[in-house]
Amino acid sequence: MIIVMKRSASEQDITTMIHEVEARGLKANVIRGTERTVIAAVGEERVAGIGSLESGPGVDEVLPILAPYKLASRELQPESSTVQAGSLTVGNGQIGVIAGPCSVESEEQIVTTAQAVRAAGASALRGGAFKPRTSPYSFQGLKEEGLQLLAEARRQTGLAVVTEVVSPEDVELVVEYADVLQIGARNMQNYRLLEAVGKSPRAVLLKRGPSATIDEWLLAAEYILDAGNDQVMLCERGIRTFETHTRFTLPLASVPYVQQRTHLPVVIDPSHGTGHTYLVPAMAQAAIAAGADGLIVEVHPHPEQAQSDGYQSLNFAEYEAMMAACQKIAGAMEKHLGML
Amino acid sequence: MIIVMKRSASEQDITTMIHEVEARGLKANVIRGTERTVIAAVGEERVAGIGSLESGPGVDEVLPILAPYKLASRELQPESSTVQAGSLTVGNGQIGVIAGPCSVESEEQIVTTAQAVRAAGASALRGGAFKPRTSPYSFQGLKEEGLQLLAEARRQTGLAVVTEVVSPEDVELVVEYADVLQIGARNMQNYRLLEAVGKSPRAVLLKRGPSATIDEWLLAAEYILDAGNDQVMLCERGIRTFETHTRFTLPLASVPYVQQRTHLPVVIDPSHGTGHTYLVPAMAQAAIAAGADGLIVEVHPHPEQAQSDGYQSLNFAEYEAMMAACQKIAGAMEKHLGML
Amino acid sequence: MIIVMKRSASEQDITTMIHEVEARGLKANVIRGTERTVIAAVGEERVAGIGSLESGPGVDEVLPILAPYKLASRELQPESSTVQAGSLTVGNGQIGVIAGPCSVESEEQIVTTAQAVRAAGASALRGGAFKPRTSPYSFQGLKEEGLQLLAEARRQTGLAVVTEVVSPEDVELVVEYADVLQIGARNMQNYRLLEAVGKSPRAVLLKRGPSATIDEWLLAAEYILDAGNDQVMLCERGIRTFETHTRFTLPLASVPYVQQRTHLPVVIDPSHGTGHTYLVPAMAQAAIAAGADGLIVEVHPHPEQAQSDGYQSLNFAEYEAMMAACQKIAGAMEKHLGML
Amino acid sequence: MIIVMKRSASEQDITTMIHEVEARGLKANVIRGTERTVIAAVGEERVAGIGSLESGPGVDEVLPILAPYKLASRELQPESSTVQAGSLTVGNGQIGVIAGPCSVESEEQIVTTAQAVRAAGASALRGGAFKPRTSPYSFQGLKEEGLQLLAEARRQTGLAVVTEVVSPEDVELVVEYADVLQIGARNMQNYRLLEAVGKSPRAVLLKRGPSATIDEWLLAAEYILDAGNDQVMLCERGIRTFETHTRFTLPLASVPYVQQRTHLPVVIDPSHGTGHTYLVPAMAQAAIAAGADGLIVEVHPHPEQAQSDGYQSLNFAEYEAMMAACQKIAGAMEKHLGML
Repeated sequence: MIIVMKRSASEQDITTMIHEVEARGLKANVIRGTERTVIAAVGEERVAGIGSLESGPGVDEVLPILAPYKLASRELQPESSTVQAGSLTVGNGQIGVIAGPCSVESEEQIVTTAQAVRAAGASALRGGAFKPRTSPYSFQGLKEEGLQLLAEARRQTGLAVVTEVVSPEDVELVVEYADVLQIGARNMQNYRLLEAVGKSPRAVLLKRGPSATIDEWLLAAEYILDAGNDQVMLCERGIRTFETHTRFTLPLASVPYVQQRTHLPVVIDPSHGTGHTYLVPAMAQAAIAAGADGLIVEVHPHPEQAQSDGYQSLNFAEYEAMMAACQKIAGAMEKHLGML
Repeated sequence: MIIVMKRSASEQDITTMIHEVEARGLKANVIRGTERTVIAAVGEERVAGIGSLESGPGVDEVLPILAPYKLASRELQPESSTVQAGSLTVGNGQIGVIAGPCSVESEEQIVTTAQAVRAAGASALRGGAFKPRTSPYSFQGLKEEGLQLLAEARRQTGLAVVTEVVSPEDVELVVEYADVLQIGARNMQNYRLLEAVGKSPRAVLLKRGPSATIDEWLLAAEYILDAGNDQVMLCERGIRTFETHTRFTLPLASVPYVQQRTHLPVVIDPSHGTGHTYLVPAMAQAAIAAGADGLIVEVHPHPEQAQSDGYQSLNFAEYEAMMAACQKIAGAMEKHLGML
Repeated sequence: MIIVMKRSASEQDITTMIHEVEARGLKANVIRGTERTVIAAVGEERVAGIGSLESGPGVDEVLPILAPYKLASRELQPESSTVQAGSLTVGNGQIGVIAGPCSVESEEQIVTTAQAVRAAGASALRGGAFKPRTSPYSFQGLKEEGLQLLAEARRQTGLAVVTEVVSPEDVELVVEYADVLQIGARNMQNYRLLEAVGKSPRAVLLKRGPSATIDEWLLAAEYILDAGNDQVMLCERGIRTFETHTRFTLPLASVPYVQQRTHLPVVIDPSHGTGHTYLVPAMAQAAIAAGADGLIVEVHPHPEQAQSDGYQSLNFAEYEAMMAACQKIAGAMEKHLGML
Repeated sequence: MIIVMKRSASEQDITTMIHEVEARGLKANVIRGTERTVIAAVGEERVAGIGSLESGPGVDEVLPILAPYKLASRELQPESSTVQAGSLTVGNGQIGVIAGPCSVESEEQIVTTAQAVRAAGASALRGGAFKPRTSPYSFQGLKEEGLQLLAEARRQTGLAVVTEVVSPEDVELVVEYADVLQIGARNMQNYRLLEAVGKSPRAVLLKRGPSATIDEWLLAAEYILDAGNDQVMLCERGIRTFETHTRFTLPLASVPYVQQRTHLPVVIDPSHGTGHTYLVPAMAQAAIAAGADGLIVEVHPHPEQAQSDGYQSLNFAEYEAMMAACQKIAGAMEKHLGML
């Protein structure tokens, strides 16, 4: 960490800060510039309370040098990780495709959707049973009944089931039915929940919070890894910006950035990332060309009648067309797409 | 809600959308403009699945007209609400001041802080026992022992205790010790937790998530109100923007905006809202001049040694000076500040 | 436009607003909902002062219905436009590739770069002679000498020249040397400059401002079109968001969004859009897969010695590798890339 | 500047970077940590091309240490600057108040407004003659006739005139009529214009661009100072964020931040900063309590009929009430407000 002193800092201030640095078990190197003095502190800077040094006398700012995460870091593990859960493979040249409705609404809805996306090449089925909804007046999901319907769809199609868990107390129940536990964007920093899925035997799809920095997202992954679960997929689903023509802004540069910094595979959600059906196929194609390891896409038999997220769901024909186009891009990237 | 049709929409598309609107129990009014046709749908538009109409044939976009929240709305309850919890009053001309450390670290730390902020005019004590931390390697709080120390500080000073609860399963325990339950920014959309505090007998301080729109924040309050708890304070603590000179951007216009739209009192957190000690007093003063009903401020005996948030904590002398300046502004606003 | 009245609006308020609407030459339709009344105003809403209606008595908000731009609109011109300038074609299945250094620094630098990018498949040469720089202490460009060097590079390679113009008074001079006039992001709303290039005989590359909404960007294009120049390319170069791991956030969903709303071709700048060399190739590939009509990429013989933007410039080998990868994606999209 | 090397950097890479640093006239200090090596480069880091070092072999990132501006810096000039222009004083305990319409529309409009704001305590008159408008179809201002009307209003009231200049070629004309030249937010990085006003004999009000960082804003001021004009006021008018309930987000923490970093006075624009009339008074009060040196506020005889910005303009009665409330806050701050 670099401690930048103010121009007005006294020798006494510098001495005090050297002592504060050493008291935390770090070694202090003092560099005196023409305008400012900086103290370069060498050692394990991920210890508690380092940020508080900014309140020391004569300090202007404190700049960290090391990435705050360790287990997720590619410096620690140079080779890329692959996640495998039932019919779903993400990584190692295989682009996993997770498709299905926002919410499970009925047996007919989820089974017909599973069959349609399976036929078009999906490798897993998504569907929400526990739905975190912005308004208390919106549909809140079928809960355990929804999980049972997802399991039925898996029985009929062989597709792995990806579904969200919203509270630590539900983890045990969802583990019974699901192949992959999804942590939604709103819960990315629900640390109790991260610890619970970290101790579970299921792979985890960790969505990025809409205002989380990439470091915060990787630290959330670190909670899961630190709890002992190494089957973690990162999912970029868009960030909140001033742009309102799309519901969120999908920053595809996350793909190469994350792939350089971490060994974890990265999945793109073009549905939430754009919020409009007509923008989804182009962004799915772009995600693959950017090097993404997977896609998660909302598909519904009748989007205009969906209980949730209809505005960003593809119908079956649109999904099939999207997969055909994505297949060509995947070929150009020399990768395999879903079950195609 | 207004359904804006594309210029290319056919008569058939318009007829289909009229049926979709009527199928949701709403009345459709068709207005034909020179370039576009719009359908104004009249009735209770807060029902599930309205957004999915955007997937209908020939639809360009759907614009909601009504505020999505009801119980929080000033249209429903024109008079302002006041929250009262032990020594703390927020609203009705009384500016509640909640002060104390980010984390409870020891008995000496919390008791001396409680005495110092009490002497300078605070009306309640803050302090975290359950700490949600971005990194798994950071100090995670003293948990129940921290709650006991807060209760001891209350016994010695008479100050009401405000502390965070992070999981539904902890609500019962925290209710035993605290006067006000704080919902942190990361948990603003943890709906299971909102329902749990909504059923508790304690007042709730609901922090705004750093990327939550004001409507999403008020809908989170709606979850608590809808569960039966009407002692809700909104807390603006800054939003995430491109600006990095401050840790968050504190949008004080939230105060008059929220006061026009809702009857709930609004508290400002200038510590998280700026992230730097030297910016806190000016923003505390500005919050009062903007009409805020309360303040929540981080204070620590030795900020440079704090386990968390030292960079944005005031020491005792800084807090006392801030309160003296705030007292003058409160006087100019003809309000009472804390216990001064 | 929809005028949403407050719940508390009186009949008198509604009558007043009907008169205000009619005074602007629009027709007022009143729709009375259960909670609110709205006035749907039909007619040409792009007239001056419409926004001021929000100050009328009892008005809650005013929602526009029509896109604010006309000449740029695909509703007006359904077929896509193609821009042609010397060796550069953008649109109609041809992906134009503009490559070269941020700044023209010397004859050797610009000529060797032109030769290298020409060999790897570029269809035009970029290079700044007039440089708008954030700091007055940074290199400000070679000015007319830089233009002469660009013309020399064109003479030797046949590549069209794309260069920035920063002030209306320079347009005449730059027109002498350049094939395409670039309007930089900082000048997107320099309307005097937009009018000047709108009256020039050269094609224009209009960069999006980093905080411009897409509507504001298309209105800037409208200034150029309205002045009589229909050879306009839109260039997405990233927006400013809270994300600091990349210098800007490149929202590739702009491509399908803009292509739906307007007939103008859209070019992506992955260099400014990411700000780091190692992220550029992936985003160039993604841009093509998203359907972009062109690329503009920074290339320098020795990025670490560049006078400007070295951190986001490719060297010749990196550019060649990027073009080979992009060529495969372009093939999958059934388009032609640059001169390949 | 600190050059952070990658963990994988070789000794050769480090040696290369030491040479690059020394080639730029800086001294290199190498610090070897447990995980990373950093090179602290000491000397004048504001030279051209420093950023390009990030492209050097083995480099992870480059962190600047010194503020990029010099003349604007409080480290250079510890005492605060005061700007004086006719009846307007900004700084030194005097809060300047600039009030008037967005656009000059007619003699009656500007003269009656000048009289009304003068009576309520304003110290200067604002009004736009050259209007940069987002749409080419909006009212573009009365141009020189508008300047003449402003001069007439000054003659009748004694108020200094503040008006915008949008192009270098207009500076000479505007200087004839105005006491203060305003640089609008869209032109904050129009460097040719900054140089032109920097050479003029008039004080300058420099608005912050809606996506400019504070450093970029201060560097824009540096252009004016560097051209020889030391009568510069900074004007915070709100930044663009995801929040759409207000038109921009007004970050009042800019006031104490800027006052710590620079000696220049800072003026707040609560009209553009909020975009809604009913939010303006609270934010004007808050600005004063945050320590602002001035206010600029839009006032119009009939906001609902204004040619521009009516939605954020106060009528005369609203302005008078706002000034009375602000006067109380100014008193609590022991400052003088406008001509009160």
